[in-house]
Amino acid sequence: MKNFLSMNQSELAEAKEELQRKFQKFKDCELSLNMARGKPGADQLELSLPLLDVLNSRSDCHDASGLDCRNYGELLGIPEARKLFADYMGITPEETIVVGSASLTFMYDCMARAMLLGVLGGDKPWGKHEKVKFLCPVPGYDRHFTICETLGIEMINIPLTELGPDMDLVEKLVAEDETVKGIWCVPKYTNPLGGSYSDEAVRRLAALKPAARDFRIFWDNAYALHYVYEDTPVLNILKECKKAGNPDMVYLFGSTSKITFPGAGVAFFGASRDNVDFIARQLNAQSISWDKINMLRHVRFFRDAAGIRAQMDKHAAILRPKFDAVLSALEREIASTGAGSWVKPKGGYFVTYMALPGCAKRIVQLCKEAGVVLTDAGATHPYHQDPEDSYIRLAPSFPSPAELAQAMEVFCAAAKLAAVEKLLA
Amino acid sequence: MKNFLSMNQSELAEAKEELQRKFQKFKDCELSLNMARGKPGADQLELSLPLLDVLNSRSDCHDASGLDCRNYGELLGIPEARKLFADYMGITPEETIVVGSASLTFMYDCMARAMLLGVLGGDKPWGKHEKVKFLCPVPGYDRHFTICETLGIEMINIPLTELGPDMDLVEKLVAEDETVKGIWCVPKYTNPLGGSYSDEAVRRLAALKPAARDFRIFWDNAYALHYVYEDTPVLNILKECKKAGNPDMVYLFGSTSKITFPGAGVAFFGASRDNVDFIARQLNAQSISWDKINMLRHVRFFRDAAGIRAQMDKHAAILRPKFDAVLSALEREIASTGAGSWVKPKGGYFVTYMALPGCAKRIVQLCKEAGVVLTDAGATHPYHQDPEDSYIRLAPSFPSPAELAQAMEVFCAAAKLAAVEKLLA
Repeated sequence: MKNFLSMNQSELAEAKEELQRKFQKFKDCELSLNMARGKPGADQLELSLPLLDVLNSRSDCHDASGLDCRNYGELLGIPEARKLFADYMGITPEETIVVGSASLTFMYDCMARAMLLGVLGGDKPWGKHEKVKFLCPVPGYDRHFTICETLGIEMINIPLTELGPDMDLVEKLVAEDETVKGIWCVPKYTNPLGGSYSDEAVRRLAALKPAARDFRIFWDNAYALHYVYEDTPVLNILKECKKAGNPDMVYLFGSTSKITFPGAGVAFFGASRDNVDFIARQLNAQSISWDKINMLRHVRFFRDAAGIRAQMDKHAAILRPKFDAVLSALEREIASTGAGSWVKPKGGYFVTYMALPGCAKRIVQLCKEAGVVLTDAGATHPYHQDPEDSYIRLAPSFPSPAELAQAMEVFCAAAKLAAVEKLLA
Repeated sequence: MKNFLSMNQSELAEAKEELQRKFQKFKDCELSLNMARGKPGADQLELSLPLLDVLNSRSDCHDASGLDCRNYGELLGIPEARKLFADYMGITPEETIVVGSASLTFMYDCMARAMLLGVLGGDKPWGKHEKVKFLCPVPGYDRHFTICETLGIEMINIPLTELGPDMDLVEKLVAEDETVKGIWCVPKYTNPLGGSYSDEAVRRLAALKPAARDFRIFWDNAYALHYVYEDTPVLNILKECKKAGNPDMVYLFGSTSKITFPGAGVAFFGASRDNVDFIARQLNAQSISWDKINMLRHVRFFRDAAGIRAQMDKHAAILRPKFDAVLSALEREIASTGAGSWVKPKGGYFVTYMALPGCAKRIVQLCKEAGVVLTDAGATHPYHQDPEDSYIRLAPSFPSPAELAQAMEVFCAAAKLAAVEKLLA
C-alpha cells in the first residue's frame, strides 16, 4: 500500500472508503479477542504445573538451615530462596528480601512506607513534604502510575526511547528539584516500548546527583530473563550505583509472576545491605514472615538460576510465534503506509504501536467496535493522558497465534483507517 | 504452701532461702525451653500436610466460575474462598475479601491506608490530622501495638477483663475525643488474657457513638474457632453494628495461620459492602490479585465451614494437654501462695500470669537465667510498658507437654521467688 503521508486528499478519500468497507467486514465477524493485558497464556502456565508436585504430604518442609517452613519466622525469606533470587538479580543474598507473591504489592508497599515512615538517609517521611514528585519515563506501565496517583505523588513525563529515558532531562530535574524523590524504571524489554536501557543510560542513572538526599530509583526488572528473540544484557544497576558512590539509591524489584504463576509465585526485592537492614526494621511492623512453603516449592523446583533460565527458554519458545504474528502483521500492513511505527522488541510482554498523533483513542475505539479489546489509549502515560494520543500497548501473550493473526488484521485495518481519517480532517 | 501475703518477714526470709536453693537446682539443669511465641507445635502442623496433596500437576486449577487460578485476576479473591471464609466469619461473601497469607499484614495495611488515604466516611486521611489515637485493651497483642507505634498513632491503655474492655471508659473516650480513631479488639480467647467478650461488651462496642465519623473497630478474631476446652460463642460484631446503625464501623480480620500453616495459609477481611467497595478501589493500586492457587488449595481441602471445624477439633485435642500442663502447675504451685493470678482460658493460644505488681520483669529474668525463654515483660502493653510490671504471657502451644511441665516448674519457682523478694523489699 502506498504511503498515506504522500497521498493527496482524493487518494486519501478513496483509501478511506476502501478501508471502511474492509473494516465493516471485520465488524460483521463479531469477534471477541483480547490483547489488553500482559497475561501469560495457558500453555505458558502449563510449564509450571510440576511446581505443584514439588511438595506433598510426605515432603520434608524444613529448609537447608533446618527451619520449618510450615511455621512462623524468617521475615526476610528462607536463606536458599534469598540465594536463588539474589543470583537471579546478580546481587548477594544479604542484599535480597523474598516477599509475598507479587512485586507490584511490594512496590506499592515501598512507596507507602517511604510516604509514611521515610527511607534511609531522609530527614522525614516523604508524606511530610509539601510536594513529592516522581519521574515517569513514557510510555510506561500503568500500574506504576496508579501507585503514584493513589498516593498523591506528582508525576513528570520523561520521554523514553529504545535506549532508555531522556537522561539529560532526568539529570536536570533530579539535580535542581529536591521534591523529585524518585524515578520508575523498567530497564529491560521496557513495558511497553520493548527496548532495553543502554549501558550509558544505566551508568548515568547510577551516577545521578539528586538534590533530594533520599532519592530512589524504583528498578522494576520485571522481564530480567524474559527474552523472546534475544537476551540483551542490561548493566547491573546496584553494582553501578556502588561504583558511582550511590549504593543506597536503588530498589530492585522482581517476581516469578511470569516465570511460574502470576500472583501465585514469589516476589523479591534487592538493595544495599543498609537499605535492607533499614527496611527490615520497618517490615517488622507488618509481617512475621511471608509464605515460606511457596518459597521452598520454588527453590526445589528451580534448584538454581540455570533452572530458571531453562524455564525461560520454554516461555520464549511459546511467546515467539505470538510476537511474530504481531510484528509480521505490522510489517506487512503498516510499514509502507506511514500510519505508525514500533520498536521490534527482543523480549518482554509488549509491542508499542505509535500512531500518528491524535489517532490512538480512535484506533482503540474502532478495535472495540470490531470485538478486539486493547489496553485503553492513555494507559501508557501518567493520569491516563497521552498528550500526543499516539501510544497503544499491544499484549500478544494471552491469545493463541491464530487469534492474534485475526486480532492483528483488525488492528491494522483500524490503524490505517484512523490514520486516513486524521489526514483527511 | 502457705500464702505469702500472710507471712511475716522472718517466714518470708525463710521461704526465700528455700526457693533460692530450689531455683539454683533448675539453673544447674541448663535447660533450653521456649514459651515465648504463639507458634503451633509440629504435631499441629502435621494436621495440614494433606493440604499439600490437594493440588498437583494433574489438577484442574480452575475455580467453580471457570477462572484459571494460575493466572492474574480477581482482586478480592476467588468466589468459593470468599464464601468459605464468609461462612467462617458469619457474614456474606460480598462482605469478604480474601487477601494474602497473613492477617497481620492486612491489618497493618488497613491502618497504613487509613493514614495515607483515609477510610469511608472520613473527610481526610488519618495521617493529615495533628494527632491520631487508638484505644488498646490491655493486656493485648504486642504486634497490634507495634503497628500503631510504627505509624505514630498514640495508644491509650484500656483495662481488659475476662469479659471485655472497660466499656465505660471506651464509651467516654470515644464520645469526647475526635482524635480517637479506633480500637483494637481480640474478641475471643483474647490475646493474651484468655477471656472472651461478653454479649454486653460486643453490643456496647457496636453501639458506640464516636466523635470521629471515621472511627473503626479493628476486630482481630484470630481465634474464632480456636477452642481448647470449650467453644464460647461471641456475638457477631458486624450484625450488631448493623443493628445499632453503625454498619461501617468495624473491620474483621482472620486467617488460617493457626488452622493450616502460619504465614503460608490465607488471610481474610470482613466489613460492610460499602467498606469492601471502598477498600477494593484502594487495593487496586497495590495488587492485581493475591495467591489464588493457595485459596483453591484451602477451599478444596476444607470444602466448607464444617471442614474447618473438624480440623479445629484436632488442634484442640493436641493443645489441651499443653494447656493442662500450664494450668495444673499454676494451680498446684501458685494458687495457695497469693503470688499471682490468671484466667483459665477456654481456648486461644495463651495464659496470662498476673504477678504481684513489680514482679513481671524479675520473673522473666529469672526464667531466662534458668534457660526458659518467655515473652518479654511489658510486651502485653503499648510502648512495652506495663505500668504495674505485672503481666506475663505464657504460650503453651509450641513445646511438648513434657517440656511444658519442666518449663512450668521453673516458671512457678521463679514466680514464687520474685513474689517473696518483693514482699521482703
